[in-house]
Amino acid sequence: MSGALHAAIAELATYNDDPTAGGITREVFTPTYERALEYVSGLMRSAGLEVRRDAFGNLYGRRSGTDPSLPCVRTGSHVDTTLNAGRYDGVVGVLGAIEAVAGIADARRSIEVVAFAGEEPRFGTGCIGSRAVVGDLSRADLERLVDRDGVSLATALEGAGLDPDAIAEAMWDPSSVHAFLELHIEQGIVLESSGDQVGVVTAIAAPHDLRVTLTGAATHAGATPMALRRDALAGAAETMLELERLAVGSPSGTTVGTVGVLRLRPGAINVVPGEVELDVDVRDSDAGARQAVVEGLLAAVGVLATRRGLTATVDEIVRDEPAGCAPFVVDAVREACDALGVSSRRMISGAYHDALILARRVPVGMLFVPSAGGVSHHPDEHTAPEDIDRGVAVLRGALARLAG
Amino acid sequence: MSGALHAAIAELATYNDDPTAGGITREVFTPTYERALEYVSGLMRSAGLEVRRDAFGNLYGRRSGTDPSLPCVRTGSHVDTTLNAGRYDGVVGVLGAIEAVAGIADARRSIEVVAFAGEEPRFGTGCIGSRAVVGDLSRADLERLVDRDGVSLATALEGAGLDPDAIAEAMWDPSSVHAFLELHIEQGIVLESSGDQVGVVTAIAAPHDLRVTLTGAATHAGATPMALRRDALAGAAETMLELERLAVGSPSGTTVGTVGVLRLRPGAINVVPGEVELDVDVRDSDAGARQAVVEGLLAAVGVLATRRGLTATVDEIVRDEPAGCAPFVVDAVREACDALGVSSRRMISGAYHDALILARRVPVGMLFVPSAGGVSHHPDEHTAPEDIDRGVAVLRGALARLAG
Repeated sequence: MSGALHAAIAELATYNDDPTAGGITREVFTPTYERALEYVSGLMRSAGLEVRRDAFGNLYGRRSGTDPSLPCVRTGSHVDTTLNAGRYDGVVGVLGAIEAVAGIADARRSIEVVAFAGEEPRFGTGCIGSRAVVGDLSRADLERLVDRDGVSLATALEGAGLDPDAIAEAMWDPSSVHAFLELHIEQGIVLESSGDQVGVVTAIAAPHDLRVTLTGAATHAGATPMALRRDALAGAAETMLELERLAVGSPSGTTVGTVGVLRLRPGAINVVPGEVELDVDVRDSDAGARQAVVEGLLAAVGVLATRRGLTATVDEIVRDEPAGCAPFVVDAVREACDALGVSSRRMISGAYHDALILARRVPVGMLFVPSAGGVSHHPDEHTAPEDIDRGVAVLRGALARLAG
Repeated sequence: MSGALHAAIAELATYNDDPTAGGITREVFTPTYERALEYVSGLMRSAGLEVRRDAFGNLYGRRSGTDPSLPCVRTGSHVDTTLNAGRYDGVVGVLGAIEAVAGIADARRSIEVVAFAGEEPRFGTGCIGSRAVVGDLSRADLERLVDRDGVSLATALEGAGLDPDAIAEAMWDPSSVHAFLELHIEQGIVLESSGDQVGVVTAIAAPHDLRVTLTGAATHAGATPMALRRDALAGAAETMLELERLAVGSPSGTTVGTVGVLRLRPGAINVVPGEVELDVDVRDSDAGARQAVVEGLLAAVGVLATRRGLTATVDEIVRDEPAGCAPFVVDAVREACDALGVSSRRMISGAYHDALILARRVPVGMLFVPSAGGVSHHPDEHTAPEDIDRGVAVLRGALARLAG
């Protein structure tokens, strides 16, 4: 359908702080990110959108409706990346939205395309741009949140020419927003496995992340008989399998539990690990099912720690509430699929997105296009051009329905 | 008994490349190590020993017997350390031997105190000094073995003024050695748990170390349902618990299995680990029991990898054969304990030592003194002065018996 969109995705990928690594590194509020936003602003203007930036650095491109007094429809995603990432995550939802809006005939409601700042967790917490617009970032948070080099979010905002003291101005008035709809790559293999072309998201899972620290005794691997060990890593292994068992058995059918980070000390082949930290991520769109897995895990950790002579401490890293998509937005997406003859599948979003945060204040929806092999946050991330085109067409149809 | 010995242990601890870390760092063939050997040489000379260094840098202090034509008795250990280590590991067996020999009345056999070079694994493999004297280090090994900075063993030997092409000259003539006896701290809590004062070692366990690499798929932790995962870390957890189960159930009663090092990629809280490397250490003084655990583990890894959609590769890191101590050396130690009224316990050495390597060519024995809390390779490593004195007295009695 549109060679221009795919050329723009390729062009945006050249805004990259680490091109030799093979992927794309474009963290929010870096000079490279700021230049990329300039490029996106140019695309918005070319599409006839009126461009502005809010007090937190979120970028908006607005097309006025025939009745600008009506609550508007917003769509978009993000153009920042993790380290050495792919070129589609977020970008498809921003550049695809610009493309979609340009193809919509006159509508009553205004439509705004948004590129949210900092969906990826440069500062530890993700979705800071959407958190800012729903009023869930305080001035103190801007000092508390720091990146891996110790740069605070407040300092980074200033570096981008923004005023940390003014972020409240970025807040949305919920009554002015009819709906928010986000197009995104799936980042999983549900669509690829089922063969459906578009995922109609009905709910967005949210993470409850915990750091579990198990402390035993770092003793000699040769000189300590099995019966005299207090092996923190063996306790961690039991924790991980228990997490897996609980998630697989969760009655919601959608709970996932992951240990993606594990740190052990001292980390020598001839020493029984004395301390292990596990970063545990539990997600579901069903808050009750998620909580049951977390509670089951903590109970199991208590039991195994006692049995193994370990001490266990648990710190909460993050706990976001899952969100349901608004039925009228879900319907708009599904109807657009049907009208275009696109095969679709109702599904939850296991990953979190800006839409999850926005759902605290406004009706939201999401649609997914397939990710090859489910690969994301990696140079090999790929979505076929025809899948992107199909997603943009559905987005256009849904936005036209929502903007009426 | 001897304040001089404890003062010497404290003095040797000042030869330290990283004093601010709290422990002792004195890796073999560094300038600090070479200066420490000079200090030990001085102690040997003060004790009336004739000092020499062999082609591999092992240090000898000799006291001639009344019949120097008889095969000699050797005793000793090492004075190199791991990083940020304690002050007793190895050192007690060298300085204690100097002290012990000085107190022995004339004996028929000559007695030699040895400080072996590189018992700790600066170059990846431990016990290189004892491997050299039994002829198990080739000229090619000297190039192959490198430290963490990429310095080869050959280069390090040259830096210490030694000729890598001459290492064969360091080899012992087994017919010239009656026995080797090593005093060492236990590095475990068997003696502390039982309350015995000295451990009479009957066999020395040896490690069979493997690197197990499990490869699955690094997919999004939120977007990948449990049923679609190929989680390498979950497979690693199952591997670790299987290792523990096999070691605990090993019929020898002395098998230990440890995973002390685990590397996971990519290592992000929101990504299912796609690849995990486990460094697995299995030890026993019973080679058959050890082999059964290794084989059981590899079979289990094959099964779980298939079930989980992982690929598994296994590389051997090291495989040393366990050794039995010579009954006449064991008897000499036990008799010395009994004569001194020291409570003793027959036990295996779970840790490996230079004596393990030497057992390939000459009769060996070992005796242990208690380690507080089993802590070793750590600044908190501690053995009480009276325990050291008791061990030195037993060593003296046993050497006197062996030297006749």
